[in-house]
Formats: sequence, structure tokens, C-alpha cells
Amino acid sequence: MRNIRMAISYDGTTYYGFQTQPIGNTVQDVLLQAIRVLTGEHVDMTASGRTDAGVHARRQVINFKTSSPIPVDRWALALNSRLPDDIVVLQADEVPPHFHASYFAKRKTYRYGIDTSKFGNVFERKYRLHYPMPLLLEEMKAAIACVKGKHDFTSFASKRSTKTTHVRTILDARIEETDGKLDIFLTGDGFLYNMVRIIVGTLLWVGEGKLSAADFKRILETRDRSAAGPTAMAHGLMLWDVEYDD
Amino acid sequence: MRNIRMAISYDGTTYYGFQTQPIGNTVQDVLLQAIRVLTGEHVDMTASGRTDAGVHARRQVINFKTSSPIPVDRWALALNSRLPDDIVVLQADEVPPHFHASYFAKRKTYRYGIDTSKFGNVFERKYRLHYPMPLLLEEMKAAIACVKGKHDFTSFASKRSTKTTHVRTILDARIEETDGKLDIFLTGDGFLYNMVRIIVGTLLWVGEGKLSAADFKRILETRDRSAAGPTAMAHGLMLWDVEYDD
Repeated sequence: MRNIRMAISYDGTTYYGFQTQPIGNTVQDVLLQAIRVLTGEHVDMTASGRTDAGVHARRQVINFKTSSPIPVDRWALALNSRLPDDIVVLQADEVPPHFHASYFAKRKTYRYGIDTSKFGNVFERKYRLHYPMPLLLEEMKAAIACVKGKHDFTSFASKRSTKTTHVRTILDARIEETDGKLDIFLTGDGFLYNMVRIIVGTLLWVGEGKLSAADFKRILETRDRSAAGPTAMAHGLMLWDVEYDD
Repeated sequence: MRNIRMAISYDGTTYYGFQTQPIGNTVQDVLLQAIRVLTGEHVDMTASGRTDAGVHARRQVINFKTSSPIPVDRWALALNSRLPDDIVVLQADEVPPHFHASYFAKRKTYRYGIDTSKFGNVFERKYRLHYPMPLLLEEMKAAIACVKGKHDFTSFASKRSTKTTHVRTILDARIEETDGKLDIFLTGDGFLYNMVRIIVGTLLWVGEGKLSAADFKRILETRDRSAAGPTAMAHGLMLWDVEYDD
């Protein structure tokens, strides 16, 4: 059996998230079906992590084992011709048998996109939260700087999180501003359920002046989800990149 | 009666073009319906020009006469709350009674977007032609420079054009290249039916080496549609801007 790794990109708008669900209609279901049509095999697929319903991926990484003799440089083209136009295989390579897309992931980056223009850009409406209020950008930057480093992120994790520890290390956190847009980038060794969306929902309260950067820091230290802001909507979130040590 | 001018933006993916058709489902039909719901009036609407089925507008300009007392600064918000999310009113102002969005338009700019990446960017798939072939960019730039100035564009007009003259003046023509993308911008005093799409279809033949820039120039001078390349697909075309002298 060969272990195939693929980088994929998808527009999550119409899917119930990445991971297979009993109800169907997930990105993984569509990928598995395309692989079945191509190879005749029912493979087991592992992703670097799940993405929720409506969340996008600029670059997600998956792996699966296969007996198919298809050369590694043909997988992307062969699958793309069998996939709908909102899921694309960017690249495929063969990795050692023990490689696992989730356990081996060293760093992940998410981007949360905000459209601050008055009436919203119609061409980005599915990929950015429209938030036309004036925002205190410097205060938001001061707040997001607090998440850098190793912290217990319980305040910014869904209460449905089942992880034994909520300690994660954020390697980079920054806000980029361009004409009518904010891009919030977070890079870390791992993320808890809804973590980016809760950080962004709380940051937007800072932007509106409902909280200060000092309040944001206290919320992080409180380790209590109910102290933080709301979970920002799914469609602004995009898994930006996943990095491995190879 | 007041004469209201509005700048609008739309994602043309699901519409049969801008202008009202017997079959319905046009951008204009949707706008007229929203104005009817808001004011109770059946207005006559004029646009700077039509856009075809599947063509987008970053900034289209329309005008219509109304007896409605709604203040001009409330029109955008009032209509946006009654429009689907793929049509947005960006701005409204009141103009003199003789203003006409088509006759008064001085310059129009179109952008044709091309995605040259190997498997295509899923997030721009509705707004760019996916064309993963290697392209001779310098030759394309030499070719597009030929359309600048005043020419008879019969070679680059649909045979269905009913205009009495095919002479138009192109004020600016350029290609911008960014990572995996080409943006072709054309600014002119007016455009013939399918003109941008036929210029782009012919430019892509230049890019592939099927024609040289000198061939492109000869095609323009021939004044014969059958000498030119194919009409590039609609979804890559976007009405970028319309300018008036005021």
C-alpha cells in the first residue's frame, strides 16, 4: 500500500464541513467518491483537521493509503476531472507509511476575512464577514498581540471541546488592512474547536470599543468561555496553510 | 420627477445579463422589482450599457425618474435591504433631468480576468477564465498595444452588431500580471457587442503562439470578424468602471 498525501483547496459554502457525516454532503464524502470512481477503492482518509460547515480551505492537507498504481504526478489531474468545481486537488506526493496528516502537522495558519466597506463587495461575499462598523484597528492589534505565545485558550474554545488540554502555542497573530478589508491571520501549533472564530468575535468587540485590549487579555487569562465574545460566522474563516517538517 | 443615478455592482453568474428580457431573470428585472416594492412605482431604467449573460459589474451606472420623496442618501440602504446578495447599490445621487446613463458616459473600463494557475483558484472560479497554458506575455502586450487609439473595430465585433459605425477610441489597454493571474484592462469611449471578449480570445491565441503581435495588428486592419479569434467566455468579463464628466 502506498501512502498518498494531497494538498486540496475548497469553497466550503455548500458543504456540511470537511469530515464525513451521516447526513452526507461533506468535502470528504465528495473526495472519497471521486477516489472510488477513479480506483475502485474505499480508502480511509485523514485530514490535518476538520473544518466546520461553511468554512473554506485555501490549502488543506489529507492522506490515504491505496493499492492503486496511478503515478503520483497524475493524481491531481485525474481527480480534478472527477470533482465539482468547488473542490480542487492542488498537488499530490507519496509519503512514508507512518505519515499522518493530523499528527504530523507542525503549524497551521487560518485567515479570517472581514469586509469593512459600507455595502459589501459582492465578489467576496461568500469569503468575508461583512462588518461595516468603524473599527478601532490599533486597539484590535494590541489585543491580538496578547494571544501570541503559549496559553490556555479555554476562554476561546467552544464548550463542546473534548480536548484534555486547552494549552496551545500561537506563533504568529496579525491583522492586515487593505482598502475596505481586514485579514486576521493566526498561526499556531494547533487550534481548539471554534478557537479562531471566538478570538475574532471577541476582537470585533474590541474594534467596536465594547472591550479594551486589556479586557481582551483578562478574558484570555480567565479561562472561561462565557467571558469572551460571540463565535464569528463561519464563512469568513479559511484554513490558509498547513506545514510539515519535510 | 427627480432623476436618480445609482452606481451598482453585481455578480452576473446566475443572471441572463443586465437588460430586461421576456424570459426574465435579469439584473434589471431584479432592480425594477426592488424599486417597485420600495416606491410603488414602475420606473423606466437606463444603464450605461448592457452586460451579457454571466458578465459581472464591479461598477455599473444606471438612472431612472421617480416621484418618490425618499432622500437621495437613503436609496442605497433601502434598496440593498430588498435586493439579493449578488446585487448591491453602492451609491445614489440626484442628477439633472437630461442626464442619461448611456448617452452621457464618457469612458468605460472593462477587466477580463484570467487564472493561469495549473488547477485554478476555487475562490475566483466564477470571475476568471481558467487558462493554464504557458502564455507569451510580452507578445500579448505588444498585440494589445495595437488597439490603442481610434480604429474601426469590425474585426473584434460580433456579426450581430447593429451599430452604424464600428469606429471606437481605446484610451488605455494594458495587461497586469500577478501570481497566477492576468488582468486585461481596456478603457474606451465605447465598446461594440462582444468586443472585449473577442479581443481577449484573439490575444490568447497570441499568448499561445498561434498568432504574432503583427498578425493581431493585421487582423484589426482587415475589418473582418472571421479573421479574429474566438469570443472568450463571459464569466471572465467585468464592467470595471463608467466615467462621466461631472
